[in-house]
Amino acid sequence: MSKNTYSLESFFPFWNKLSKSHQNLLRENTENLIFKKGSEVLNSDTECLGLIFVRSGILRAHIVSDSGREVTLYRLLQGDICLLSASCIMSNIQFKIHLEAEEDSHTYILNTSAYEKLITESILFSNYINEIISSRFSEVVWTLEQILFKSMDSRIADFLVEQSILQESDILSLTHNQIAKNLGTAREVISRILKYFQNENILTVTRGKIKILDKKSLIALSR
Amino acid sequence: MSKNTYSLESFFPFWNKLSKSHQNLLRENTENLIFKKGSEVLNSDTECLGLIFVRSGILRAHIVSDSGREVTLYRLLQGDICLLSASCIMSNIQFKIHLEAEEDSHTYILNTSAYEKLITESILFSNYINEIISSRFSEVVWTLEQILFKSMDSRIADFLVEQSILQESDILSLTHNQIAKNLGTAREVISRILKYFQNENILTVTRGKIKILDKKSLIALSR
Repeated sequence: MSKNTYSLESFFPFWNKLSKSHQNLLRENTENLIFKKGSEVLNSDTECLGLIFVRSGILRAHIVSDSGREVTLYRLLQGDICLLSASCIMSNIQFKIHLEAEEDSHTYILNTSAYEKLITESILFSNYINEIISSRFSEVVWTLEQILFKSMDSRIADFLVEQSILQESDILSLTHNQIAKNLGTAREVISRILKYFQNENILTVTRGKIKILDKKSLIALSR
Repeated sequence: MSKNTYSLESFFPFWNKLSKSHQNLLRENTENLIFKKGSEVLNSDTECLGLIFVRSGILRAHIVSDSGREVTLYRLLQGDICLLSASCIMSNIQFKIHLEAEEDSHTYILNTSAYEKLITESILFSNYINEIISSRFSEVVWTLEQILFKSMDSRIADFLVEQSILQESDILSLTHNQIAKNLGTAREVISRILKYFQNENILTVTRGKIKILDKKSLIALSR
């Protein structure tokens, strides 16, 4: 196992407070799954997968309209746990999310019967699940606020700043179409705004690549 | 107490499974609060109120942009519990909601210290909170999907059908401005679409009132 890959224990800040039998339950009911970059982890037809623990890589959670339009809800990074992949056992979750691996991603999958046992037996686990749902809820409201209240140029600037942090580079491998999918808008809108950013010397756009020249201005625009 | 007003016990399907001391904790740490129709229950400056239990009436949860634009996230009806009014103790909730009483509303408020004690001591309570957050989360994603993927005429039709169920009447007391606030759009957009509905003999609009004439068509439009 690479030292950059999370162990099962690392996902639980309270691992040592769990009973031995719950620790074993977790160990015995998780399996390793690797998702290749670009592959679909979950779509609206997937049967209940279980809880996904992201050991390395990036999973992107998004919703899709009937006409195929996509909007990113949030991303799951190393150390994050995805609950919605077990939504079949969460009676109050009425929507379907899609999950896509944006990088090669190593995961643990905890099966749903172990999850159900843990949540009804361990208050530490139950409270932890609470925190995770609250956190995702918060991210979705943030997304909603962005869409409702922020202009598209701010949203694009924000997205590029975020991507440059995620990719640890000022040269981003991104097509106009990918940005459009992330922000739930048309490719033409993205192209127009990127052209404007280019005229302002904030970035340069070449085929499939965006090079950030003036990050300070981009950050200012994102606010 | 009116028989139409919820008792404390009714909020907990598992009341009899709670320990006597937790039942007493709940009884001793809730107070009655009445909010008049139109009053603000919670705004972004409110200090932590605690959990709100809706005994009767309707509370509307919404977000507000810097420029004052409002979008309704969901409504809390009799029997519903609002967690976000205790968001100060939920470390992962980063946004501020506003709550407004849409009708005269009787509530119980459970203080935050009792909430914290319950959530760390009672797994039944903790799992119940889980279900409530999941349910609100689901409603917010629904709202997001509506805003992103549905045309404004469908959304208005949907809103009017919902209001006619809530108000138990086909004659709705609603201004164009109220509808606009609920759906996060401009009053002019609402007026234009209502005029179109009127031309189609689906409803009639008079000052501050909307009378639904053809509910079947309205429901069809809302889909």
